[in-house]
Amino acid sequence: MLYFENDYCEGAHPAILQKLTDTNMEKVSGYGTDPYCESAKEKIRRACDCPGADIYFLAGGTQANAVVIGAMLKRYEGVLAASTGHIGCHEAGAIEYTGHKVLELPHKEGKIQADALREYLKDYYADQNHEHMVFPGMVYISHPTEYGTLYTRQELAEISAVCSRYELPLFLDGARLGYGLASDGTDVTLADLAVYTSVFYIGGTKVGALCGEAVVFPEKAPAHFFTMIKQQGALLAKGRLLGIQFDTLFTDDLYRKISRNAIETANALRKTLRENSYRFFIDTPTNQIFIILENGQMERISRDVKFGFWEKYDDTHTVVRIATSWATKPEEIQNLSELLAAYRHRADV
Amino acid sequence: MLYFENDYCEGAHPAILQKLTDTNMEKVSGYGTDPYCESAKEKIRRACDCPGADIYFLAGGTQANAVVIGAMLKRYEGVLAASTGHIGCHEAGAIEYTGHKVLELPHKEGKIQADALREYLKDYYADQNHEHMVFPGMVYISHPTEYGTLYTRQELAEISAVCSRYELPLFLDGARLGYGLASDGTDVTLADLAVYTSVFYIGGTKVGALCGEAVVFPEKAPAHFFTMIKQQGALLAKGRLLGIQFDTLFTDDLYRKISRNAIETANALRKTLRENSYRFFIDTPTNQIFIILENGQMERISRDVKFGFWEKYDDTHTVVRIATSWATKPEEIQNLSELLAAYRHRADV
Amino acid sequence: MLYFENDYCEGAHPAILQKLTDTNMEKVSGYGTDPYCESAKEKIRRACDCPGADIYFLAGGTQANAVVIGAMLKRYEGVLAASTGHIGCHEAGAIEYTGHKVLELPHKEGKIQADALREYLKDYYADQNHEHMVFPGMVYISHPTEYGTLYTRQELAEISAVCSRYELPLFLDGARLGYGLASDGTDVTLADLAVYTSVFYIGGTKVGALCGEAVVFPEKAPAHFFTMIKQQGALLAKGRLLGIQFDTLFTDDLYRKISRNAIETANALRKTLRENSYRFFIDTPTNQIFIILENGQMERISRDVKFGFWEKYDDTHTVVRIATSWATKPEEIQNLSELLAAYRHRADV
Amino acid sequence: MLYFENDYCEGAHPAILQKLTDTNMEKVSGYGTDPYCESAKEKIRRACDCPGADIYFLAGGTQANAVVIGAMLKRYEGVLAASTGHIGCHEAGAIEYTGHKVLELPHKEGKIQADALREYLKDYYADQNHEHMVFPGMVYISHPTEYGTLYTRQELAEISAVCSRYELPLFLDGARLGYGLASDGTDVTLADLAVYTSVFYIGGTKVGALCGEAVVFPEKAPAHFFTMIKQQGALLAKGRLLGIQFDTLFTDDLYRKISRNAIETANALRKTLRENSYRFFIDTPTNQIFIILENGQMERISRDVKFGFWEKYDDTHTVVRIATSWATKPEEIQNLSELLAAYRHRADV
Repeated sequence: MLYFENDYCEGAHPAILQKLTDTNMEKVSGYGTDPYCESAKEKIRRACDCPGADIYFLAGGTQANAVVIGAMLKRYEGVLAASTGHIGCHEAGAIEYTGHKVLELPHKEGKIQADALREYLKDYYADQNHEHMVFPGMVYISHPTEYGTLYTRQELAEISAVCSRYELPLFLDGARLGYGLASDGTDVTLADLAVYTSVFYIGGTKVGALCGEAVVFPEKAPAHFFTMIKQQGALLAKGRLLGIQFDTLFTDDLYRKISRNAIETANALRKTLRENSYRFFIDTPTNQIFIILENGQMERISRDVKFGFWEKYDDTHTVVRIATSWATKPEEIQNLSELLAAYRHRADV
Repeated sequence: MLYFENDYCEGAHPAILQKLTDTNMEKVSGYGTDPYCESAKEKIRRACDCPGADIYFLAGGTQANAVVIGAMLKRYEGVLAASTGHIGCHEAGAIEYTGHKVLELPHKEGKIQADALREYLKDYYADQNHEHMVFPGMVYISHPTEYGTLYTRQELAEISAVCSRYELPLFLDGARLGYGLASDGTDVTLADLAVYTSVFYIGGTKVGALCGEAVVFPEKAPAHFFTMIKQQGALLAKGRLLGIQFDTLFTDDLYRKISRNAIETANALRKTLRENSYRFFIDTPTNQIFIILENGQMERISRDVKFGFWEKYDDTHTVVRIATSWATKPEEIQNLSELLAAYRHRADV
Repeated sequence: MLYFENDYCEGAHPAILQKLTDTNMEKVSGYGTDPYCESAKEKIRRACDCPGADIYFLAGGTQANAVVIGAMLKRYEGVLAASTGHIGCHEAGAIEYTGHKVLELPHKEGKIQADALREYLKDYYADQNHEHMVFPGMVYISHPTEYGTLYTRQELAEISAVCSRYELPLFLDGARLGYGLASDGTDVTLADLAVYTSVFYIGGTKVGALCGEAVVFPEKAPAHFFTMIKQQGALLAKGRLLGIQFDTLFTDDLYRKISRNAIETANALRKTLRENSYRFFIDTPTNQIFIILENGQMERISRDVKFGFWEKYDDTHTVVRIATSWATKPEEIQNLSELLAAYRHRADV
Repeated sequence: MLYFENDYCEGAHPAILQKLTDTNMEKVSGYGTDPYCESAKEKIRRACDCPGADIYFLAGGTQANAVVIGAMLKRYEGVLAASTGHIGCHEAGAIEYTGHKVLELPHKEGKIQADALREYLKDYYADQNHEHMVFPGMVYISHPTEYGTLYTRQELAEISAVCSRYELPLFLDGARLGYGLASDGTDVTLADLAVYTSVFYIGGTKVGALCGEAVVFPEKAPAHFFTMIKQQGALLAKGRLLGIQFDTLFTDDLYRKISRNAIETANALRKTLRENSYRFFIDTPTNQIFIILENGQMERISRDVKFGFWEKYDDTHTVVRIATSWATKPEEIQNLSELLAAYRHRADV
């Protein structure tokens, strides 16, 4: 069985386990005050070209979203997000649980547009009844998006400009950020994120860590962010677990290198899929590939390959997701390619 | 200046003030345990042909929505509502403040369709990841809707059937229920509501009371609903204020009679508007009339008439709302009709 | 049956009903923007000698507490209150429902002491782990307290000074404020409250209104307080109901005059009780009188008088509360006095 | 410098890291559905002699408390806990953040008493106003307590009986459970917990894991507990991280063995302290030792030893905590013992 279901089915990059083992019996202070957290933060600040950034480590993506959004919004505010955004769809109402509404924006391949954002805000403030409505309090985007697509620096700058105009923090969910940075499909860098966002996070869980997301505030974290992390049950006593992982990922460019593996293996797969006339649901430059399979064909392939069922396309077709990762091996791609070629008959006939 | 901005710009029906005055110095127990609340409940039970109904009085519509929904949903559930629903748009996030998501359904003139509801629920449970999503926990409809439209008994029965099939409570927001009951545009009665919904409320604030909504659970209120009302700050010490009002409204058919006044005056206005070729934004059978005015025309009319600005129609036109009420007098309709006839030039030239 | 159970068993002062009736058919704007709210605010500002105060009207005491505290606390903060405070005991967890902890201080006859407050705050900030604890975010006091006792201006000034030192807002719950202002037991005036607190409210529900509390921010309400009121379901569409009541209460000194009636009738009762050697549980200068009755005696008296059972005193005695109000009539006092004299045998033998 | 500040200053027991490394490249499914979670659950069920237990893994103690309590309480309920309970003191209001009040009970060396609990509940239901108060909805105890003390089986049975009588779930916080099970100071076993509680957790973070607590429902978890974990941001994508750790801890009795090390080293220390006439603040049978030091003495010792400052004892003395752990080595105890003997002059002279 070939396994392409997601990018979090293995443990951690071996260098991480090695470092955890090497440092294991050192006695350090708790709650993220240890030297490994400090070192990791310093390395991330350098990688972001942002020496003054405030950085915190959290254990997972939904947690990072709920903690950051819950900490930054005022009580009467909601968060603007694409209707496809993870926070609005697949986090079991974690944002609403903190008392805040997710305000939906239309999306284009998973991305919001600066124009649509501007229009929403203009209309909102033009509405004489807007004090009876949820105030827009911040903007959430994901990069890569839930559809594997990427913003360009230009798009990011435009969205950021609208946010500045309305004094809204821009928050970028980077659960798969490594794959976005390593992709050929955008010019956005870590340093750009530090310029254009108010807060973003660098995903570890899906990019080679056992767990962990590094939340970066280029300017300043909200006052008492530490206490709010605790208040949401998200403070690890052994903060070293997160610090050591990010310290390793940001040593010798490891984060970029292992992300690049996912992109290269995905590129190879995309080539095979195109050569065999598979039909793409969406054109993505990252490690997630969405194709449309005829249901019978899907059923047959699924005997040999584990992939993700994404959504129904029509009565006879389904969108499936194939995901590569930091851990995907060339032979796995080779095997999958051969299999897909064998099933080469066009997906939609 | 003619005032047609809304249906809550006067105080209360005089009979209510009279009754408040007549009973004023009687000493009664607090928190809704007084004989007037009891009498009002009994009269409402009879009006609903539902002798076993549990009834509670709350002060306003947003409060009723937040208390009922907050009390009936389980923690991991959200409430399904039309995208135009009051709870999702104009209640400042009161539902999310209780920790719950408003799950949007498409609407047709403010109404949800049984088919769309069924499809949503089928897709939800078919989604292998639905345990990562907000569970649909109840269905919210408003009757009349925010657009002044009404469900038929048949539509209500169909929606109710889908709810039963998925074991979802159906909640009907009747902030303007009187106008729905008195309209010629539907066959839905109070007794129907007791059959087809799990909970609904009979609006007082917009139908002749100073304040107050009567929340009716045809079967049984959630356990400790009283305490949850208190927990949300919605328990009035002098519950008599609400009991006396509803006792009056449900004596001698007053609620229906005063609601009918709003319908008849609205019907007269609709006739004038049609005769003068005004353009309707939506065809409504209740006390809210939505017409499309050219912006210059709107500006001129607004010197003499107060109405509600509803939404931008296009760059040169605006949707405005004219509302009649229990208190609208024939001479007001006469004056407005003459004025509108004077501005008879078609709205859209 | 004589009724001394509480101070909210009648309707409203007749002048209020008269004013509601006189203004009933005037068409005014909603949500507290009407001229009666404006007039009431202006009169309250004058009564408080505080021309710049921001004033909002809410429907009840628990609601006022939950809305004010919920709006003023930061997310990681709790509210300090006497362990006997209403918010911690008898509001069904309304504060916790907004996500905030009630931090308990010791009390002395229902009052907190500046020294105890200072010590709490000193210890809190001295604790190296305080970032793992709930931050003290405001101080809540009630005046009169739940035990009917009153702060002196000196005590209030001292508590206020500690609050200022730690930058904590001081919030005074004045659900029965009228009875505090009219009592001979303190020198605190409305103008003092505007000087020493950050926010307080003037209770209407228990002092002659049908419902309503006037929330006074001597300096400035929190940004978007209006929206937060709506978010908590506490915004009345017909704001006039509250405005007209407070406009009446603050015309011709009515609020003070009717409060004084409660004090004078309570004073007369206290005299009778003393003369007949009843045992006081606590010495109060307001409209609430707490006495200790032997259980058999209590049972006998309760056949003729409705009073409040407060708490068990010991196995054979109970603390009961007798409350006068704005509406208590001399003949009621006369009747009760005679009855109590008839049962003159000492309560504790 | 000797480090006795807490029991979570090292990484994990080496067997855990070894197992993480051995299984690292295996591809498994996410969110706790992997075979290691399954195996760990099965081993825990056996250790608890409770084959039908529902088990979930969470990352930390505050998280476990907030998720379990937030999932089990009804909306109008609070959780009863000793006034010294972790949830009421040192979790930054995490319980209140879920909307629930922590109801305080008096404590005796950190433990609640069945009698005090019974009395609280009796008084609560006897109070005619209890529907205006927070309902007691579950009982929280910690074992070992925050003071390192332990319940006996008899005490646990009595508390459990009161809970059953009032139909309240009993929840046991076992953040340091291993040290309780390995102590000579109680007869409580894992199997007893499965009999006497409704839910408890087996602490990993403080007993040799990198992170993780195993939440055990001897009968059945609340419906949709999985979704509520996600809703609180507590669901790890790589659930294997927790499963592998607990699988290791419950293989070959490792959890008990490493816990015993903490007890034996603590016993040795207690002996030294007694021999040198140090003054104990409280007599504990677990890995936490609380002694009273004169401030000057404390200052001198702290140059060589890191320990925890617990609380001020009086103006010249402080309570400090010395903690051993699964990782404490004999030579560390030897070194500390020598040092303490050198400072042998009685602490309180």
